[in-house]
Amino acid sequence: MKKIINDPANVVDEMLDGLVRGYPQYVERIPNTGAIIRSNKASMQGKVGIVSGGGSGHEPAHPGYVGKGMLSGAVAGQVFTSPTPDQIYAAIKAVNTGSGVFLVVKNYSGDVMNFDMAKDMAELDDIPVKSIVVDDDIAVKDSLYTQGRRGVAGTVFMHKILGAAADQGATLDELDALAQKVLPNIKTIAVALSAATVPEVGKPGFELADDEIEYGVGIHSEPGYRREKLQPSKALVAELVGKIDDEQHLTADKQYAVLVNGMGATPLMEQYIFTHDLLNNLGDRGIKPAFTKIGNYMTSIDMAGISLTIFELADPQWLDYLNYPVETIAW
Amino acid sequence: MKKIINDPANVVDEMLDGLVRGYPQYVERIPNTGAIIRSNKASMQGKVGIVSGGGSGHEPAHPGYVGKGMLSGAVAGQVFTSPTPDQIYAAIKAVNTGSGVFLVVKNYSGDVMNFDMAKDMAELDDIPVKSIVVDDDIAVKDSLYTQGRRGVAGTVFMHKILGAAADQGATLDELDALAQKVLPNIKTIAVALSAATVPEVGKPGFELADDEIEYGVGIHSEPGYRREKLQPSKALVAELVGKIDDEQHLTADKQYAVLVNGMGATPLMEQYIFTHDLLNNLGDRGIKPAFTKIGNYMTSIDMAGISLTIFELADPQWLDYLNYPVETIAW
Repeated sequence: MKKIINDPANVVDEMLDGLVRGYPQYVERIPNTGAIIRSNKASMQGKVGIVSGGGSGHEPAHPGYVGKGMLSGAVAGQVFTSPTPDQIYAAIKAVNTGSGVFLVVKNYSGDVMNFDMAKDMAELDDIPVKSIVVDDDIAVKDSLYTQGRRGVAGTVFMHKILGAAADQGATLDELDALAQKVLPNIKTIAVALSAATVPEVGKPGFELADDEIEYGVGIHSEPGYRREKLQPSKALVAELVGKIDDEQHLTADKQYAVLVNGMGATPLMEQYIFTHDLLNNLGDRGIKPAFTKIGNYMTSIDMAGISLTIFELADPQWLDYLNYPVETIAW
Repeated sequence: MKKIINDPANVVDEMLDGLVRGYPQYVERIPNTGAIIRSNKASMQGKVGIVSGGGSGHEPAHPGYVGKGMLSGAVAGQVFTSPTPDQIYAAIKAVNTGSGVFLVVKNYSGDVMNFDMAKDMAELDDIPVKSIVVDDDIAVKDSLYTQGRRGVAGTVFMHKILGAAADQGATLDELDALAQKVLPNIKTIAVALSAATVPEVGKPGFELADDEIEYGVGIHSEPGYRREKLQPSKALVAELVGKIDDEQHLTADKQYAVLVNGMGATPLMEQYIFTHDLLNNLGDRGIKPAFTKIGNYMTSIDMAGISLTIFELADPQWLDYLNYPVETIAW
């Protein structure tokens, strides 16, 4: 294992300190927790707080999305490990200004359980809390660590939509209705060229041969649905778009947002080439996305690979939410 | 070689198309060239144009910095290869609105020669052009492809400073004086864990053992000044800050901006840990940077490693320039 770290046991602690010390204008850390909250307290007054989080190793998710117009707080667990309920509750309490708090949870059993427990703790203290469990990964069902489908990069679109609505004064019930309406429109699928190495484990989560790829892997090295020889970018695009089309029925009369997401070790060069092939593939279907993002938004430490998210903009207001200005490190 | 590409011969062409098609709100491409210019033409009216560029493989540099408040244009050559003078000249002509054009060139023999020739072409057409050659890499002198010192990640600070000043109406002569004053204050040095693989070459530019790092490498796999066993992050920080201190004499009574730059395959987790150690090291010297950026800003395709740039803010206005709002893909 070749990493720029000190002690593998301290990576999360040191990473979070580096992040908040580097960007004090956006974020601060609740002492002795993995909870990162907005520095701009005025921006939260009277608004519903939005809190997300999960295991570390997906940077810039989730602390990179904390700031005016997006998340109010993000709770980081150890690498690929859910944060504890008390840490999540600390974030809920810190960002609640009387209008309640909405939780965005990726669908992993540990996260679902711990965010639920934090919600119960908050309700005992009369803080109203609602939540959504994001399960955008269409690759497989009932994966390692997950009942149903996994929550992956499309979660960032959920953050953006809800963050914009909350900043514009949406109530907790309105955010809940919005999240329920948005959720089925976000679909993601990935292809991996290599697996992530968790610092405390010291070796990759799985092995791929030098000329081999795997479709449908998760962001914690969960198995995908097929291995094969490395294909040209346009063949990878055809496979991933085809799978999403099977689910979402892409058509020229609808509007879409797309996210081309690098998994941590994938050069932007490859992400832009993939985007070129993606826009050709969608163009052949008569589709020109109304919104595009390309970069490392939901990573898996040092995995090489790309995930594709296609988000059907069933309501034209969602495009305004995506374009709504934010003050964050990483959006 | 395991990359998400199609034909290695077409990587730059497809990458640039993917970039401009993904982000039409910021950039467009001059047809049949590697020149990327601002879509927002109104933002250039009456202002001096700022053009940079160089070989591809350093994404998001340089097209990611094209937009209001930063570059007017960026010219991309083939991978690790200077753009041709006619392409550079096409960008100069496209962004000139009558106030002239300022060129920011990284110090590589090919770039210096071709940007000079483009400048001559522009002057024949009565477009006033001035330029700066950035040589911020303190690691070595007279490297492969370079007389003197190499131009690396600190170039992005030069883009930002000049872009802000130009947006506020600085004249060509004022930008020239500003660039000359800024240049000696920007110092960069890198450490590599692995080398980049150029798609058309198909193998890494050099080999490091599994437990080996190299200090002082360039962004085209140029040799550094020392190889040794992998060290903890805080030891890497001590080495790099020590080298910059030898040059720049870091002191508590001065203000600094820092850039922690991932080389393409370095997870943000490691970059934030490095930043934590950096801020501790500087803190021990009584220094708290006034400005910090952490991320992949000047990469070397898929190299693993980090460069550190320390920029002495000799003029307090430079901090305002760094914080000046921009409309770009990647700043």
